[in-house]
Amino acid sequence: MSERLHTGAVIGILGGGQLGRMLSVAASRLGFKCHIYDPSPNSPAGQVASFVTTASFEDDASLRDFANSVDVITYEFENIPASALDLLEKRRPVRPGRNALEVSQDRYLEKKFLADAGLRTARYAEVGDIESLDRAMVDVGLPAILKTRRFGYDGKGQIQIREREEMEEAHRQMAGQAAILEKFVDFEAEISVIGARSHDGVVSCYDPGENIHRNGILRTTRVPSRLGMDECREAVATTCKILDQLDYIGVIGVEFFVTEHGLLINEMAPRVHNSGHWTQQGCNVDQFEQHIRAVAMLPLGSAARYANVAMENLIGNDILKIPEILMENNASLHLYGKESVRAGRKMGHVNRIDEKD
Amino acid sequence: MSERLHTGAVIGILGGGQLGRMLSVAASRLGFKCHIYDPSPNSPAGQVASFVTTASFEDDASLRDFANSVDVITYEFENIPASALDLLEKRRPVRPGRNALEVSQDRYLEKKFLADAGLRTARYAEVGDIESLDRAMVDVGLPAILKTRRFGYDGKGQIQIREREEMEEAHRQMAGQAAILEKFVDFEAEISVIGARSHDGVVSCYDPGENIHRNGILRTTRVPSRLGMDECREAVATTCKILDQLDYIGVIGVEFFVTEHGLLINEMAPRVHNSGHWTQQGCNVDQFEQHIRAVAMLPLGSAARYANVAMENLIGNDILKIPEILMENNASLHLYGKESVRAGRKMGHVNRIDEKD
Repeated sequence: MSERLHTGAVIGILGGGQLGRMLSVAASRLGFKCHIYDPSPNSPAGQVASFVTTASFEDDASLRDFANSVDVITYEFENIPASALDLLEKRRPVRPGRNALEVSQDRYLEKKFLADAGLRTARYAEVGDIESLDRAMVDVGLPAILKTRRFGYDGKGQIQIREREEMEEAHRQMAGQAAILEKFVDFEAEISVIGARSHDGVVSCYDPGENIHRNGILRTTRVPSRLGMDECREAVATTCKILDQLDYIGVIGVEFFVTEHGLLINEMAPRVHNSGHWTQQGCNVDQFEQHIRAVAMLPLGSAARYANVAMENLIGNDILKIPEILMENNASLHLYGKESVRAGRKMGHVNRIDEKD
Repeated sequence: MSERLHTGAVIGILGGGQLGRMLSVAASRLGFKCHIYDPSPNSPAGQVASFVTTASFEDDASLRDFANSVDVITYEFENIPASALDLLEKRRPVRPGRNALEVSQDRYLEKKFLADAGLRTARYAEVGDIESLDRAMVDVGLPAILKTRRFGYDGKGQIQIREREEMEEAHRQMAGQAAILEKFVDFEAEISVIGARSHDGVVSCYDPGENIHRNGILRTTRVPSRLGMDECREAVATTCKILDQLDYIGVIGVEFFVTEHGLLINEMAPRVHNSGHWTQQGCNVDQFEQHIRAVAMLPLGSAARYANVAMENLIGNDILKIPEILMENNASLHLYGKESVRAGRKMGHVNRIDEKD
């Protein structure tokens, strides 16, 4: 069970987006091959991988062939159907494990898991019918945000409720989906910690990065953040606690709100995370290699940071800035090989490095 | 002619070894796809590229299809048959251009080109029959090294001649191949400069690295080298002169001997170079991305170095050191995905970074 993958072993990656792409490149640096499973042809990850399966996550025959052709399975997104997991898990180890996926697929289970672990989040309540929303508003207080329990990312599936009168319209928009109501958090800053845990329980976290979102989408991450030492320690300790509670193998991204009353966990993602892209230029071992090391049962690498870095996402027409970025002295450009540009679509990112103070 | 490649364009790479592999990854970061052409299946580069052709360099039909499927052609080794170049050049731009290839494919032409440019090498003479070797030994002096004009790399095709009596045996071993005799250089150090030139004549060089060879194979490169400022400047100026004389597009590697009488050029390679691997950890834009930028008609990136780096090649059984390397804090590992280990085979390399003094 705890055997290291051998050189030339094949790592199966569910999802072929930019995260899978950068995981695949990191895996190749360690001498592994990757097999990408994605419903779309010509995926960003498929362009740089040894093997590609283009099939849906409901296609049992393709899932079976995929599982049989790889040595271990990981993923770049958390919304993998349970039926697919059932099938894959029987054939090959899936890392990080199922409990991490189940908890992070569902905002209510996530919050409950965190509360049970004694960790702090915004106040929240489960919402089903309109009466439960009414009760939740009393329990949680306004303003609040109504969120679908499942399939939310980049601000999708979220509705703000500032006043009682907005309740019915918000409930209507949820269209019967299970939801939670979260108290709106008046935060001073958003930070995230990229942590990793190996199969033998060793834990390592990168320096917290400070995030700026726009329209629900991450725009920039900076390290170092403006957190004080105490808060830094708390954020890292919280991340370690989550990793241990889940008996986790791999990299996790945990987002926090910094409020006047301390840190609150916003959400977590059981995978490499956009807010960890700065590690490509700031560290010897970046989050992608760290994740591959963990799922391949290799020892984790050092998370030490040797530079200050500002990561900027290139979203939609931001790619028009590429000619100027190519002329900058301290910029490292990472494009994802996506064919068409759409508003809100992540096309690449740029890491700008400064020598450490 | 001087148009930038568009995102999604395909770069054809002749040769699928580790240099092609790292070029391919760099190209993907800039949003390009790669098509690898190599006679061997499952080549290191093919594992991380979008397209692969497995065919010999004498297979005209495959070469034609390859050329027609790409936007520009470059290469990771210099011994490309002239017939293949004839065919490819007619269809797509080949960068760096033919003159660079012709000069560096032939040790005699290389030396002559450098001499014509007013640049200093070891004394040398052309060798054909045994009489010409006899004359060469008088002109050049002993000890000397008899080298085949073509197809030499990693110390192959080289015979030392320390005394006159060894002449006949050395000539016999050459087996009628055209050769040159080079005066043995008693050097204090070996250094190399990785330079780049863009289509519009902009030139950029990385800091000279100091190389240690063993059995004719590069073992380590260190930056900074122990060169003084004057010699550094001379090495860089020499590299720039070579780039300009060849109207070069791409990255070149130029090796120098440091002697008590100054710098002598040892040899040059019209491609990314093993002694430039340190740039992956020491610079924002490494030699691989720099080369891709040049052949794609993008502006060159900064060659500024922000760290001290020691690169160590992992040759043959050196891969047994991998478990320890994975535990080192300052080590970045790069494996090439080669299936079988052989003595003298380059399996990977490791860059060890130190913060700059």
